[in-house]
Amino acid sequence: MTREMEIICVGNELLIGKTLNTNAQWIAKQATAMGITVKRVTVVADDVNEIANAIREILRRKPQFMITSGGLGPTFDDKTLEGIAKALNRKLAVNDKALKMVREKYEAYAMEKGTETVELTPPRIKMATLPEKAEPIPNPVGTAPGIRADLEKTMLIALPGVPSEMKAIFHEAVEGLLKRASGKSAFYEKSIYADDIMESSLAPLIDKVMQDNPSVYIKSHPRGGENMPHIEIHVSITSKEGERPEERLQKAVTQLSSAIGKIGGKVVNGKQTGA
Amino acid sequence: MTREMEIICVGNELLIGKTLNTNAQWIAKQATAMGITVKRVTVVADDVNEIANAIREILRRKPQFMITSGGLGPTFDDKTLEGIAKALNRKLAVNDKALKMVREKYEAYAMEKGTETVELTPPRIKMATLPEKAEPIPNPVGTAPGIRADLEKTMLIALPGVPSEMKAIFHEAVEGLLKRASGKSAFYEKSIYADDIMESSLAPLIDKVMQDNPSVYIKSHPRGGENMPHIEIHVSITSKEGERPEERLQKAVTQLSSAIGKIGGKVVNGKQTGA
Repeated sequence: MTREMEIICVGNELLIGKTLNTNAQWIAKQATAMGITVKRVTVVADDVNEIANAIREILRRKPQFMITSGGLGPTFDDKTLEGIAKALNRKLAVNDKALKMVREKYEAYAMEKGTETVELTPPRIKMATLPEKAEPIPNPVGTAPGIRADLEKTMLIALPGVPSEMKAIFHEAVEGLLKRASGKSAFYEKSIYADDIMESSLAPLIDKVMQDNPSVYIKSHPRGGENMPHIEIHVSITSKEGERPEERLQKAVTQLSSAIGKIGGKVVNGKQTGA
Repeated sequence: MTREMEIICVGNELLIGKTLNTNAQWIAKQATAMGITVKRVTVVADDVNEIANAIREILRRKPQFMITSGGLGPTFDDKTLEGIAKALNRKLAVNDKALKMVREKYEAYAMEKGTETVELTPPRIKMATLPEKAEPIPNPVGTAPGIRADLEKTMLIALPGVPSEMKAIFHEAVEGLLKRASGKSAFYEKSIYADDIMESSLAPLIDKVMQDNPSVYIKSHPRGGENMPHIEIHVSITSKEGERPEERLQKAVTQLSSAIGKIGGKVVNGKQTGA
């Protein structure tokens, strides 16, 4: 059984084109490598209703995992926790474990600087104010904890938007959860490059190879335009251990390369990767 | 009245983390600069049902514009036109204007190479097979035309996923449409950088300045962590000509800089941009 994930990225900066959404790509890559299928990425503004609506829509689709990124910090426009609470119809309340995490961070900052302990102002307490029944996840490099809520069909994980914090929490706490849930599946991929053949001429060859190799997915990415064809052909398979994924991948690549050669295309091999 | 847009990006490569979604950022930036508010970005797989569902959901939210990117090419996994047809409950049919555009492209390629005219195979005809009542938009640099469909509340524009083709069609045909529709609105923005002040200490200052300057939006982006604070503060306004947006932007920046200085933070000015 394939495990499915949806990703929500929260932040006006993504919707005004100020920031490139590297978080979505990074999370998608990690999840894919573990054999999880990312079904959808949704980017919404720093707005409680927008966040809550997007979360409700995702929950109706029942993916096993939902990861949010962004909106956990201390400022007024960090609204993800409020959005989650609204979507789940839960109250927000100061979470003791989260407050302890936040307090210890500020005590450590104060100690580093040799100043008095930093006061727990409302913006700081806000980072520990979670939807009821949610669990904080320690943030190894920043202040705002991540959040985990186990819902009926979906495990919801909320991560900060600052990439270093998002990645640190992911590696420390999320990766293990996902790996346990996704079993021994993994994703294998290889790109080959075809020159001197138009994408439209390649199309029927890909169709044929995919028919003959039903577990393999093949997608062409034109890199030079129809009249100066240089096409990346990405061949991939999501598979459990013991199902010989590398072998099945290579069989499809060999068949496709030979078919391209027969109609006068040149093929250059890329590297294969897989877990 | 603010004009709203939603963006759909179609492509498995985005959901497996192979490709960074630069198209969404680029389109969002162009639209924002024209005073259009991008409400949501949705990324879905090369799957007719996924595309059709996402389009239907967007149409229910009634944005004035919907732009799709990706999935217009000749291969089996280019499914956006089929997805649009399904979402709109329209048939797909070969469009004469689109077919002429595609044929002329292949004739030109053949002429360049001094070969016989390239045959209009099914994969090539596919690029001219549009949802009924949709209009093709010429592609100045590639083969697959863009598509425009004027729906009840929403203008739907479908662009290719290859960035050079997407941008060329956008500049040539889409920009003008959006500008006419969005009137004389524009987006103005400025970043300042604050050192030696934690984001959690900045939060109440931002609240106050936004209360005093209700048309201005302020968002802080921590760049160094709470204990090594270096914070970008992005101040922006979407405004019509004649409403003195630059002046209102600067008033908020000045007030915020002064408030930061009073509690011991250092402020460095960035550049202001606006149309």
